Amino acid sequence: MNGRLVERDSPELLPSVKVLQKTFDLVENPGFKDLITATSHLTGDVINRFTHINRSSDDLLKKQRMIRRACHLTGGCIQRCMGCDAINALSFVTYEVDRAYGTDYHKRFLKYLEYFQKNDLTAAAAQTDAKGNRSLRPHEQKDPDLYVHVVEKRKDGIVVKGAKSSITMAAVADEIVCLPTRAMMEEDADYAVAFAVPADSEKVKLITHVANPRPRKVFKAPIADFGFADSFVIFDNLFVPWERVFMFAEWPLAALLAHGFALYHRHSYTGCKPAITDIVTGASALVAEYQGITEKSHVRSKLAHLASVAELVYSAGIASAVEGQQHDSGSFIPNTVYVNVGRRHAGLNIYHEIEILTDLAGGLPATLPFEGDFVNPETKRYLEKYIMRKEGVSSEDVHLCFRLLSDMLCSSLSGVSAVAGVHGGGSPIMEEIIIAATYDYDKKKKIAKYLAGIKEN
Amino acid sequence: MNGRLVERDSPELLPSVKVLQKTFDLVENPGFKDLITATSHLTGDVINRFTHINRSSDDLLKKQRMIRRACHLTGGCIQRCMGCDAINALSFVTYEVDRAYGTDYHKRFLKYLEYFQKNDLTAAAAQTDAKGNRSLRPHEQKDPDLYVHVVEKRKDGIVVKGAKSSITMAAVADEIVCLPTRAMMEEDADYAVAFAVPADSEKVKLITHVANPRPRKVFKAPIADFGFADSFVIFDNLFVPWERVFMFAEWPLAALLAHGFALYHRHSYTGCKPAITDIVTGASALVAEYQGITEKSHVRSKLAHLASVAELVYSAGIASAVEGQQHDSGSFIPNTVYVNVGRRHAGLNIYHEIEILTDLAGGLPATLPFEGDFVNPETKRYLEKYIMRKEGVSSEDVHLCFRLLSDMLCSSLSGVSAVAGVHGGGSPIMEEIIIAATYDYDKKKKIAKYLAGIKEN
Amino acid sequence: MNGRLVERDSPELLPSVKVLQKTFDLVENPGFKDLITATSHLTGDVINRFTHINRSSDDLLKKQRMIRRACHLTGGCIQRCMGCDAINALSFVTYEVDRAYGTDYHKRFLKYLEYFQKNDLTAAAAQTDAKGNRSLRPHEQKDPDLYVHVVEKRKDGIVVKGAKSSITMAAVADEIVCLPTRAMMEEDADYAVAFAVPADSEKVKLITHVANPRPRKVFKAPIADFGFADSFVIFDNLFVPWERVFMFAEWPLAALLAHGFALYHRHSYTGCKPAITDIVTGASALVAEYQGITEKSHVRSKLAHLASVAELVYSAGIASAVEGQQHDSGSFIPNTVYVNVGRRHAGLNIYHEIEILTDLAGGLPATLPFEGDFVNPETKRYLEKYIMRKEGVSSEDVHLCFRLLSDMLCSSLSGVSAVAGVHGGGSPIMEEIIIAATYDYDKKKKIAKYLAGIKEN
Amino acid sequence: MNGRLVERDSPELLPSVKVLQKTFDLVENPGFKDLITATSHLTGDVINRFTHINRSSDDLLKKQRMIRRACHLTGGCIQRCMGCDAINALSFVTYEVDRAYGTDYHKRFLKYLEYFQKNDLTAAAAQTDAKGNRSLRPHEQKDPDLYVHVVEKRKDGIVVKGAKSSITMAAVADEIVCLPTRAMMEEDADYAVAFAVPADSEKVKLITHVANPRPRKVFKAPIADFGFADSFVIFDNLFVPWERVFMFAEWPLAALLAHGFALYHRHSYTGCKPAITDIVTGASALVAEYQGITEKSHVRSKLAHLASVAELVYSAGIASAVEGQQHDSGSFIPNTVYVNVGRRHAGLNIYHEIEILTDLAGGLPATLPFEGDFVNPETKRYLEKYIMRKEGVSSEDVHLCFRLLSDMLCSSLSGVSAVAGVHGGGSPIMEEIIIAATYDYDKKKKIAKYLAGIKEN
Repeated sequence: MNGRLVERDSPELLPSVKVLQKTFDLVENPGFKDLITATSHLTGDVINRFTHINRSSDDLLKKQRMIRRACHLTGGCIQRCMGCDAINALSFVTYEVDRAYGTDYHKRFLKYLEYFQKNDLTAAAAQTDAKGNRSLRPHEQKDPDLYVHVVEKRKDGIVVKGAKSSITMAAVADEIVCLPTRAMMEEDADYAVAFAVPADSEKVKLITHVANPRPRKVFKAPIADFGFADSFVIFDNLFVPWERVFMFAEWPLAALLAHGFALYHRHSYTGCKPAITDIVTGASALVAEYQGITEKSHVRSKLAHLASVAELVYSAGIASAVEGQQHDSGSFIPNTVYVNVGRRHAGLNIYHEIEILTDLAGGLPATLPFEGDFVNPETKRYLEKYIMRKEGVSSEDVHLCFRLLSDMLCSSLSGVSAVAGVHGGGSPIMEEIIIAATYDYDKKKKIAKYLAGIKEN
Repeated sequence: MNGRLVERDSPELLPSVKVLQKTFDLVENPGFKDLITATSHLTGDVINRFTHINRSSDDLLKKQRMIRRACHLTGGCIQRCMGCDAINALSFVTYEVDRAYGTDYHKRFLKYLEYFQKNDLTAAAAQTDAKGNRSLRPHEQKDPDLYVHVVEKRKDGIVVKGAKSSITMAAVADEIVCLPTRAMMEEDADYAVAFAVPADSEKVKLITHVANPRPRKVFKAPIADFGFADSFVIFDNLFVPWERVFMFAEWPLAALLAHGFALYHRHSYTGCKPAITDIVTGASALVAEYQGITEKSHVRSKLAHLASVAELVYSAGIASAVEGQQHDSGSFIPNTVYVNVGRRHAGLNIYHEIEILTDLAGGLPATLPFEGDFVNPETKRYLEKYIMRKEGVSSEDVHLCFRLLSDMLCSSLSGVSAVAGVHGGGSPIMEEIIIAATYDYDKKKKIAKYLAGIKEN
Repeated sequence: MNGRLVERDSPELLPSVKVLQKTFDLVENPGFKDLITATSHLTGDVINRFTHINRSSDDLLKKQRMIRRACHLTGGCIQRCMGCDAINALSFVTYEVDRAYGTDYHKRFLKYLEYFQKNDLTAAAAQTDAKGNRSLRPHEQKDPDLYVHVVEKRKDGIVVKGAKSSITMAAVADEIVCLPTRAMMEEDADYAVAFAVPADSEKVKLITHVANPRPRKVFKAPIADFGFADSFVIFDNLFVPWERVFMFAEWPLAALLAHGFALYHRHSYTGCKPAITDIVTGASALVAEYQGITEKSHVRSKLAHLASVAELVYSAGIASAVEGQQHDSGSFIPNTVYVNVGRRHAGLNIYHEIEILTDLAGGLPATLPFEGDFVNPETKRYLEKYIMRKEGVSSEDVHLCFRLLSDMLCSSLSGVSAVAGVHGGGSPIMEEIIIAATYDYDKKKKIAKYLAGIKEN
Repeated sequence: MNGRLVERDSPELLPSVKVLQKTFDLVENPGFKDLITATSHLTGDVINRFTHINRSSDDLLKKQRMIRRACHLTGGCIQRCMGCDAINALSFVTYEVDRAYGTDYHKRFLKYLEYFQKNDLTAAAAQTDAKGNRSLRPHEQKDPDLYVHVVEKRKDGIVVKGAKSSITMAAVADEIVCLPTRAMMEEDADYAVAFAVPADSEKVKLITHVANPRPRKVFKAPIADFGFADSFVIFDNLFVPWERVFMFAEWPLAALLAHGFALYHRHSYTGCKPAITDIVTGASALVAEYQGITEKSHVRSKLAHLASVAELVYSAGIASAVEGQQHDSGSFIPNTVYVNVGRRHAGLNIYHEIEILTDLAGGLPATLPFEGDFVNPETKRYLEKYIMRKEGVSSEDVHLCFRLLSDMLCSSLSGVSAVAGVHGGGSPIMEEIIIAATYDYDKKKKIAKYLAGIKEN
């Protein structure tokens, strides 16, 4: 990190660790316990839902609700869903690969899953390759390593090389689950590879960027506790033993795995994105109240827009569970169309949500004096006098509200969160591609033809 | 109509009658039968779902699906949902009025309902008053009749006066169910009135506007079969016997009835609006195919937007059923927030959907030669030659496709449908008002305060 | 028309004739005279500005203002600009063709222009070909006639064949000026052709669609006076003498002529589109006033949006004149970028403008009773009573206002106008293509590189 | 600053000083000299245009172009326009006050102006008061100091008290020009005050927030050189001598001064906002080129949107100069409507512009490894290998490009700039209020009435 070798317990990584920690602590929380635990279909043990394979519509509804509520507590992304979504995708794709190729990936995977659940592990999902020239396929790249691929097949396993980019929580996770990033052609067979490795394996190099909250010395608040660590994950001729390999060269099914992970992960977004919108909504409603403008009709309309974004995205998640289907492996798969229209709607609205908060807040979040000025008595007396808004709200509360807004609108972390909101789990254009591929446009054309009086051939 | 007295079986009303007829015919349709029939909770008889009281989440899901599929067949609004939504609202509000006032409206209503179901009736819901000056309450209007009100209370019933505006299907319905249009104050007590009357009662005057499809002489098609009839409904000192009165002077509950109807009716919109979007999507995809531009990325993106609008609105309907609740009366009430975010999203997108269809179609829908020119051999040969698009599509199909588009974009009926799409069931601003009143903004503010470190009092 | 042979003075064409007539009548109007007349640079005579070649920035500013004001009077497109824009494009492109090929088109053109100005002619510009498969070039089409082309070259002229689609006012114009619709390749040389012919030439077949206002019997109003006539224009082996041919086979310059016409025509749109927005703004403000909602903040915001659209588009026209440049031929050419961003902004906002008007009007424009009901005393007394809005506005004025809105929102003509607003003169996607081709993105990239510290090679 | 007393030459303020310095250095730049200098109408001396009073349409056009070009060099706001806009507003409002009240403010002002020009001064304009409860007027606030007001009138001047919020460059400017923030009523007379003071006056307390670029150790670039310093400006019983007082108690003209400053300042925005859009456009086009996606049609469309925003806003500025008017004082005043529609359009598009850049950039700006990792040879070799995009672009250039994007999207400063872009000079809702007050809606209503056949009274 920034040219230095950094340990996992270094202070820069603490805000990321705290996010994961929340997912362990909540198991003890009476109001959360029932939501965040589940019964393993493998062992019957009570496990953390983040290690659970969804086996029913109800499982999906619970996962969605758990994520929404947990994100309220960390003020953003709960992060641990990545690994959960990766194992869910593997749970049915390994089954499909076996069906097509007579392999035994599914059994291997179930063994790994049991280990994963028993040890209550966290995993980063490493999907996005370096990719080089975006208009070339993996095998067409000048440098063959620009997508992760197998460079050697051994008796006891495979050796892989390449890099995955922008991998959240890799630096603090137990495991890294590596998945293909796209559909592959026959020439790309070596790139159709999936596996899991301990995140601290020697041949796994992490170059990590942290997006931590702006530190607070005096005015502590949860918003300033949690952060992101994203890594360039480099597999430098990494050996992976067979029992941790879940796809290798079955290129026709690379797309299913890539999209299967995206599907579960976008389903997670129907939980976390409404949570983030909830936070924007709450902050907007709060600052409107403090400024005394709650009753203005443009404010009402803007708050209604925020509520609509949150609840439409959440609705899409509900519909994807209600209209999902059980796979032969027993895994329950959310409906593709609903998941994708939901994630797309979220992605299209992020900057507009920030714009609404900015609009209601006025300029102060951008120019709020530093903490020290609210401590030094010489300046404090001025600030407390002049920051007052509506009667009945203390200057301290006004100050804390604007400090929250400043963090939400004008910090490095807020910029990172917005970009993550657009691109994490696939940007709106990715959802449009999936919608184009899976929506039944022919059925709609038939309706149009019927109404037009055009005979079907 | 247009200064003349017109009978119910006049040809101008036929396109509206045909819409209602579809709801009767479909009962015989094997693919529809299970969806469009239900079991009366009163009698156990098999009844048309349009006369059914929703008693479960599943009832709501079925109603929504039925409406979406039926609208595909009529190319637009199925109309009969109005009466269905009115009786559903009365089914729980009469119960609440009785609870509050010790009245016996609910019993009366159930008797009426039995008659309604047994005779498989259709009803217009007359809600929107003339309203006069929009910034004054009913009792403040200069002319007291600008809202419907009771002018005389008799032993055997009440006499009402006033007018309801833009009442769809009143001219072809069996019954008119009159409901309050808004919340009332004590001074408005005489305006807090609900009742049902046969639509052809003598003291009910209908001044009717028909929005019929552009007639086709040669190139017949379903799109040209169905239309609207909307009436100014005038109650000119109309007597209503007590057994048909469902609210009278219980002003504090007028809002519940007004909103209760709106709630069920907006739930219906989560079925019909996706259907209309489906038709726009189908027409868009079809003309894109004929023009040979399906593969362009802007086309893909526009079609994805249409699919997203349809499925987000439909999702909201599903979520409103899943998160709805059983009322003490046994009626099942859809969740308010989901219904309203769904209807709002639909209303906000209508003109944009038309814009997309226009965009993909090009200018021809606006300038398509008349039918006669496709018949006269002298001109037909030119038109068939020059209207050709992509190879493999006959000039007749291209012609029928653009005639459909012309009807969908450039006819009087298309304009009426767009306006109805914005305002029918309450315009987006109405949904924002309901969202403002019912969304739990305080809970969101609490989240913001927690993250900001602001102590709750 | 509709299978019948129709004369130019038939009543169906009268609403189109009336539009053109306005451009002649206004010459006598004291408030318009100075704007609508100009001095011919050829003869020094006072001529109608619609026949004038722009020779200065001021000419462009005046043309823009003239069009905006004239469209207010016809309630929409003034139509005569087409021919004006065609001759302006020819005025400099013929000069460029001569420069490149040593031809003498420019002299021919000036002779034609003198005749055009002296006789105060009107011309339709026939640009949009039938086009067949949109993904094939002219010479690649299965039927070679799907773009207009030269089929024979004679000593005294050329013979052309093909069709132009959606040609406004061809049925009522004096002349038809035919122009290429796109860039051409060498194989398309026969398609690189431009010429003018009298609109009633024998070998010119017009199949005409009229979009006329909804007729009014009693409540006459200017909005119901003016309409469109658009024709399929078929050149059925039409002979054109050399003196009326302005391009023939100089394929590398076809694009310049196609874009040159589009440029002047889009400049006209910076005048007419603000006029149409003015009408929507006026109708919106009027109905808001009558309903008593002018002071609501959402109304203020919507009216401000309408004003902004009109004035941004108008600004772009002003900027295009200020930043335009004199061509060597003496013609003054508007700045391409400003013209195109202006036209694009107009095209992107049309349906949104209609949406705003719908929003403020409520549902009544869709269901307004027919004229006869406002005449028949039996129904009139009800309608006059119940249509009342705010005190002080007569029921007749309310009625006329909503009849205007009904014509603007729910008539066949309103649909046609909206489609024309998107596609006439080139849809937004066409402007994006021109912007992509002409905007100096490299200059912007240089700024980014400088700020990033990237060295230019 | 942050609890410490900080000198004007402290390193934290350097990035702000550098911005102002640019406005002095450019006078020596041959390509800029003619644009950034002007001839004083007072003395005939060559002066910096930032101290010049606009006397013609051409002056406004030059000021607009100067600002656009200068902002390219600082990567954002050029800041010095504030003072320029303040003196321009005072130049005609003092004249108007004298005309109304027989005072001699204009003479005083001209003397101050001469001093200002001769010494080539920079000034912050202090307009936005603390304001307290947004729904109360100045004199209604519980604490009378929440708006700046006169607390004592002396023979030799006045004593003022209160605070101005979010005042850019106050900490590095020579002067602070204080102006009223809104219209005043008679009871607010003491709040109708305008004056200028040296920014380092003893009784002026500045509590300053700096928004500086993320520091760069190795990869230096102009984007990392320039920043903002915004201050809470507290007037703690500050004495101002009469010769520096430009309004005092003439409350009916407070609005003219408030709006006059806003008018000139929004005109400045028609120069700086296009510049910022240019930078976003350049960065977008550059990253699209590096990623190899320039030819995709969605990229073309997004770049066209950026170009359109820049040029529409710039057009509005041009139109405001062309349609501006000379005031009796000799000052040239930009047209209100055009200025406001331009500023509004800019304000409404800021977050959407950022969204487009995010969309084209992908997720890397949010997770880009720190500088040190591009220096340390151990990690550098990985990053240089895996960051490669399209062939022919060096990994260093790709890195610098993404570091620019990271600064533009994910830094504290980028958040501050976005907020400033919405609120600086007045947010879109402020422009809507001015448009509502000044746009000639009555003229538009007259057009609608004429078309509807409604007689004017």
